[in-house]
Amino acid sequence: MTPYDYIEAQQDAFLEQLKEWLRIPSISTLSEHKADVRHAAEWLRAHFMLMGMARAEVFETPGHPIVYAEWLGAPGAPTVLIYGHYDVQPVDDPARQWRSDPFEPVVRDGKLYARGATDDKGQTFTQMKAVQSLLATGEMPVNVKFMVEGEEECGSTNAYAFVEQHADLLAADVVVVSDSHILAPDRPSIVTGLRGMTYMEIEVFGPSHALHSGAYGGIVHNPAQALAEILAALHDGDGRVAVPGFYDDVAELSAGQRTALAKVPFTLERLEHETGLTAPWGEAGYELHERLGIRPTLEVNGLISGWTGEGSKTVLPDTALAKVSCRLVPYQDPLKIYRLVADRVAALTPPTVRSEVRLLHTGNWVVVDLDSPYIRAAARAYEFGFGAAPVYVREGGSIPIIGTFQKTLGTPAVLLGFGLPDDNLHAPNERFHLGNFHRGMKTAVHFYQQLGGRA
Amino acid sequence: MTPYDYIEAQQDAFLEQLKEWLRIPSISTLSEHKADVRHAAEWLRAHFMLMGMARAEVFETPGHPIVYAEWLGAPGAPTVLIYGHYDVQPVDDPARQWRSDPFEPVVRDGKLYARGATDDKGQTFTQMKAVQSLLATGEMPVNVKFMVEGEEECGSTNAYAFVEQHADLLAADVVVVSDSHILAPDRPSIVTGLRGMTYMEIEVFGPSHALHSGAYGGIVHNPAQALAEILAALHDGDGRVAVPGFYDDVAELSAGQRTALAKVPFTLERLEHETGLTAPWGEAGYELHERLGIRPTLEVNGLISGWTGEGSKTVLPDTALAKVSCRLVPYQDPLKIYRLVADRVAALTPPTVRSEVRLLHTGNWVVVDLDSPYIRAAARAYEFGFGAAPVYVREGGSIPIIGTFQKTLGTPAVLLGFGLPDDNLHAPNERFHLGNFHRGMKTAVHFYQQLGGRA
Repeated sequence: MTPYDYIEAQQDAFLEQLKEWLRIPSISTLSEHKADVRHAAEWLRAHFMLMGMARAEVFETPGHPIVYAEWLGAPGAPTVLIYGHYDVQPVDDPARQWRSDPFEPVVRDGKLYARGATDDKGQTFTQMKAVQSLLATGEMPVNVKFMVEGEEECGSTNAYAFVEQHADLLAADVVVVSDSHILAPDRPSIVTGLRGMTYMEIEVFGPSHALHSGAYGGIVHNPAQALAEILAALHDGDGRVAVPGFYDDVAELSAGQRTALAKVPFTLERLEHETGLTAPWGEAGYELHERLGIRPTLEVNGLISGWTGEGSKTVLPDTALAKVSCRLVPYQDPLKIYRLVADRVAALTPPTVRSEVRLLHTGNWVVVDLDSPYIRAAARAYEFGFGAAPVYVREGGSIPIIGTFQKTLGTPAVLLGFGLPDDNLHAPNERFHLGNFHRGMKTAVHFYQQLGGRA
Repeated sequence: MTPYDYIEAQQDAFLEQLKEWLRIPSISTLSEHKADVRHAAEWLRAHFMLMGMARAEVFETPGHPIVYAEWLGAPGAPTVLIYGHYDVQPVDDPARQWRSDPFEPVVRDGKLYARGATDDKGQTFTQMKAVQSLLATGEMPVNVKFMVEGEEECGSTNAYAFVEQHADLLAADVVVVSDSHILAPDRPSIVTGLRGMTYMEIEVFGPSHALHSGAYGGIVHNPAQALAEILAALHDGDGRVAVPGFYDDVAELSAGQRTALAKVPFTLERLEHETGLTAPWGEAGYELHERLGIRPTLEVNGLISGWTGEGSKTVLPDTALAKVSCRLVPYQDPLKIYRLVADRVAALTPPTVRSEVRLLHTGNWVVVDLDSPYIRAAARAYEFGFGAAPVYVREGGSIPIIGTFQKTLGTPAVLLGFGLPDDNLHAPNERFHLGNFHRGMKTAVHFYQQLGGRA
């Protein structure tokens, strides 16, 4: 039996196993789900042993645990480190926006709906089942290590430290990450760049306590209004980030590089299909795919102040808070960007209120070497699994730990993503295309066979 | 026994009775408290009967009930209609900001702490106990009616309709309202003007669902940012409301009128004491007391969008909402102001997002005739109760139903307030100064004695 036959035979079993994992609401950013996050880690460790890994261990961290597993039974062959994460995003209000319970996976129209279905339990599981298929059929051509963390959705801080502390344990020839998407089921793509991240909170403080808006309205600078004034001043009329120095370290691409990227434009049709919007927005002078792939951003992720319940409350709030994050590109430094934004907010804050900019977390951008043998192997694997040669794209998202693998371990990375652009990751009704689950396993098996010289 | 002796003798009993009423969390704006609001109304009806009113009734409305009570045993004497409200403001997060449970009243340093202590259960109760003291001692010189509503904190819409539908029932020579404050315990004041109100929600709609801020950040106009841009544009750099036509109907006061108002300035010391702020804000060209008393405002009462929980979520929100209210002065029309703000927001909304301005409620401003015999009687009553002649002030707050009494019943109003500026109404740790409770009862008794020709 070949690994591919094994995948065919086990398809239904694999789906039921994945559903089991998805039922555990491992939301890392909410402390009320701490026990669920641990439960998801323990489930994973047990599953690694069941699928034939030689070792599987839960490592403690100051935050959520990290699951490590290995099978090193191919002496002399290359070693692959597969990174993934078992934590998931919050679900906001499930009753209002989800068509089905985010933690009761269901298949509709060939797609598996659940929080974490694509990001990243589903994609990590695709890798796990590819490895299992090779192990079960006695065909495993490489050594394999897994590092699956539980804090990717809240900054990966402890994962960075873990990589630095366990460089020997994690030593590998290549890092493989399945936590991104391809363009379409018949249009695979290889991610050659990812944006970095600086995530902050901007808080404006007004009066010492909330005031009656009649008794004080007109003589006190409303902190919600002051926050709006500050946020409005962080972009100019051309959609550029109006923070002095923000673009100083941004690499401008050559005309040739921009032409190469233009092979995968982001069309207005796609924008409307995926967002319902007919009018795009953004930095003047750049195409949509460039605004996403090679240009940095500053985004308001959340706002809260004063009365937000039903009806009316005539309050003049005491504070106003914005969650703000920047997506970064080569060669911007996340900490420098934090300092520039903090300085700009301080300069924009009038003497009538007080403000604070707090750093929540940072992550490095990633650029992949297109000429590496791993990328060439990935291209052939996609062609085998999906029936079409992949195109090369710069992604707007961030997987900051890849930068840490590159910097700390010196290990190149391959992003072997199997998601789709409309998977609704980080949003209600997240889903994973089951056709991609299946093709993804075949692609991964073929990739490892090539690395081991068997394909 | 005089009514004043009765007040002295019953002081402790009165306090315990008020605490009982304050324990009922009658938050009118939150539907989860619907039963509590009714409970507070039923408690009030029963208490009116206990204190010797001839009739007390709970009237149903499409919203919360209205309690009516009367004693008409002084034929030929004037009839007084006392208006109050038994509903209270929400309490936000009691654990974080309240020193004690907002619905378990406690006395600290001569002040009674509870939600509703001053606004308006405590002040309405002051009137009730003054009336009881006159009834119990056989000294009641006037006819008295009470109308106490349960929707003042959420717009009074049904109370307006009730006044129109029950003009005969409510017919009176003067309306008395105890729902405002004096300057200090030794500095009584009479409110001669109140601001009106237009309360709105501004909502900005972006993509059809929340998006991943990496996958779409840079090509989609973030609705939270767009809302900030719109809100920031609603004021100019001089603290003026930047809505065309907003000031068109504002009465400019004469130099003489402004000089009269300047007798009660709002000092920087008071601002710092009450708000912790050292720098005021507001409309250039006007003193602080003028910005509060004779100038309109536009205030952001609340903001919400995207991720507002702990930590970070890299979401690009689908909507952003602001609660916004305008305080209005003579001769601004609340509905016209709504239309002007809605037009301005529409004009400020770029084609990259969609916006909506929804009207929640409106209320009329009030101006009181300083030469009326009722105001002169009120002045003497304050001097009797508080030991000092009152000054005349224009208030920043709103009690819109007074405008309805004036327009619908043709009845002049007297604002017999017993609160203090630092009572924290609409804010955490709301309180009522017990000295003012006591002096307030004496003041009200003296006021009614004058109206009945007995003082």
